[in-house]
Amino acid sequence: MRAMILPLTRRFLVMALLALVAVPLAHAQTDPLPSWNQGATKAAIVDFVARTSRDGGPDFVPVEDRIAVFDNDGTLWSEQPAYFQAAFAFDRIRALAKDHPEWKDKQPFKAVLEGDMKTLAGAGEKGLLEIVAATHAGMSVSDFGALVTDWITTARHPRFDRPYTDLVFQPMLELLAYLRANGFRTFIVSGGGIEFMRPWAPGIYGIPPEQIVGSSGKTEFRLDGDKPEIVKLPAVEFVDDGSGKPVGINRFIGRRPVFAAGNSDGDLQMLQWTTLNSGPRFGLIVHHTDAEREWAYDRASPFGRLDKALDEAPRRGWTVVDMKSDWNVIYPFEKK
Amino acid sequence: MRAMILPLTRRFLVMALLALVAVPLAHAQTDPLPSWNQGATKAAIVDFVARTSRDGGPDFVPVEDRIAVFDNDGTLWSEQPAYFQAAFAFDRIRALAKDHPEWKDKQPFKAVLEGDMKTLAGAGEKGLLEIVAATHAGMSVSDFGALVTDWITTARHPRFDRPYTDLVFQPMLELLAYLRANGFRTFIVSGGGIEFMRPWAPGIYGIPPEQIVGSSGKTEFRLDGDKPEIVKLPAVEFVDDGSGKPVGINRFIGRRPVFAAGNSDGDLQMLQWTTLNSGPRFGLIVHHTDAEREWAYDRASPFGRLDKALDEAPRRGWTVVDMKSDWNVIYPFEKK
Repeated sequence: MRAMILPLTRRFLVMALLALVAVPLAHAQTDPLPSWNQGATKAAIVDFVARTSRDGGPDFVPVEDRIAVFDNDGTLWSEQPAYFQAAFAFDRIRALAKDHPEWKDKQPFKAVLEGDMKTLAGAGEKGLLEIVAATHAGMSVSDFGALVTDWITTARHPRFDRPYTDLVFQPMLELLAYLRANGFRTFIVSGGGIEFMRPWAPGIYGIPPEQIVGSSGKTEFRLDGDKPEIVKLPAVEFVDDGSGKPVGINRFIGRRPVFAAGNSDGDLQMLQWTTLNSGPRFGLIVHHTDAEREWAYDRASPFGRLDKALDEAPRRGWTVVDMKSDWNVIYPFEKK
Repeated sequence: MRAMILPLTRRFLVMALLALVAVPLAHAQTDPLPSWNQGATKAAIVDFVARTSRDGGPDFVPVEDRIAVFDNDGTLWSEQPAYFQAAFAFDRIRALAKDHPEWKDKQPFKAVLEGDMKTLAGAGEKGLLEIVAATHAGMSVSDFGALVTDWITTARHPRFDRPYTDLVFQPMLELLAYLRANGFRTFIVSGGGIEFMRPWAPGIYGIPPEQIVGSSGKTEFRLDGDKPEIVKLPAVEFVDDGSGKPVGINRFIGRRPVFAAGNSDGDLQMLQWTTLNSGPRFGLIVHHTDAEREWAYDRASPFGRLDKALDEAPRRGWTVVDMKSDWNVIYPFEKK
């Protein structure tokens, strides 16, 4: 037996040694963006990262200034048939309805309970705020976080019958990791709620809570005996969308990013604030062009309308991702 | 000559080699807090850092949760005879007065121009806001930053006739560095203006702009042709003081700190929010007890009043620094 084992052992040792030698080579050759097809979009990203991280090069950016900002809805995960945070809010309304019999006859709650999206859309900002107040306030931040965590691990997306977090974009996960591997810090700058994202975004995107910027409601500190709490109040504090995004970036980060990615006109000013500056800058727009694997929408969409930013992209030198042709995989679950 | 040089060279080489060996030893033995006198305060700090960073120990804190928050005025630098940001504002009023002849007869500007601190104190919050609006708004964030940078490099503190940034506390600089060397991330959480601190605090404290939380005025994004700007508006957005500090911490950092340092009742809720939690927590209060080298004040001071927090410290287990006995050096310029 020993005679048989020895050659195997030696063979194993030789293979192990070869593996040790080969790993760095293989690593150097591994494509960091395998879900991105070869082409101008991918080449532009790789070229930008190489230029800005090449020490001594003309476009070198010191590591502390390598700030990359990403919209969330429609940029890092899907946003159809409605923003996923809206699905959370509607599920909350349905769950709370048994304690609110009056909602059966009271708008905008009636519309939510009846799935009447047309009436709901007509309720406008006032209706939206009533839903936000009823579902996002009147509890501590940590209790709200527990509700979000519970929802995100149990709710299922209507089209794919999968958890909502399965609908993150695999190519964007690769882009986030690629930027971080090259010294960039990645931030979310989203119109979505900061307290809605923080419970799950760190685990899904590898982005820590302190690098998540979003819309927020007013909060209040309370000390109940020896138990301190931050309580969510039914009032909007800050809307981190459109021209609010550069404001949020300035307040939370205090530096101008060198890389910005978005997918809608809500990201227009963030793209302008990032790229209309001296030095190397990168603006990226995710254009939803794949009705089969994801959704196809832009100028006429009620969610994530992409109109002005699409017109402005060529003039500003922003890179527009054509989902259908640039991405060979959309979601992680499609990977073979 | 050659005979003389060789022994010297050899001696130099031997010394150089010895130095190479000795450096790691010396480093391991160097006191990271040399400006802190031996005693209970210093021992408590060193014990806490050792416990929380000892992997596998019962009080180990994962590196991503090692968040330390510091008040600025009175905690990291002096705040007498008035907050240094007030000195900046008053200098701005004096500089702008030539374009505002009406200020000669208009309060609160008249009081500033005449150095009438009593009338100024009587002008209350309304007066303060008028001064802030006149000195901190109506320009872009970057133009404001340039004004602050110019002031901080030229203005001199009335008592010490030195730049204001010379009045940082050497022991606190050592504490910041010591915490960072042990995996903590250090944040400023100040009642002072976020845009006032960001131009100079990174260079002085080693704290980057995205780790500076403070009070803020409303801002607005504007695009003038191809030139984007964030403009400071004459309206208060957020007061990061008192019960506002936990709110600011929650919004900007999204985690509860494990270490908090303050010096006044404005830091009370931050200390509560940090320490009234499970797991190892450290609350530190800088008590100004040294009228000779710095200032002595607490319960009756108009700036940095320390009253409730001082009463609460023993019950909460907060460590109170007695500047006079705990610090052998106050300012960096005192070092021999």
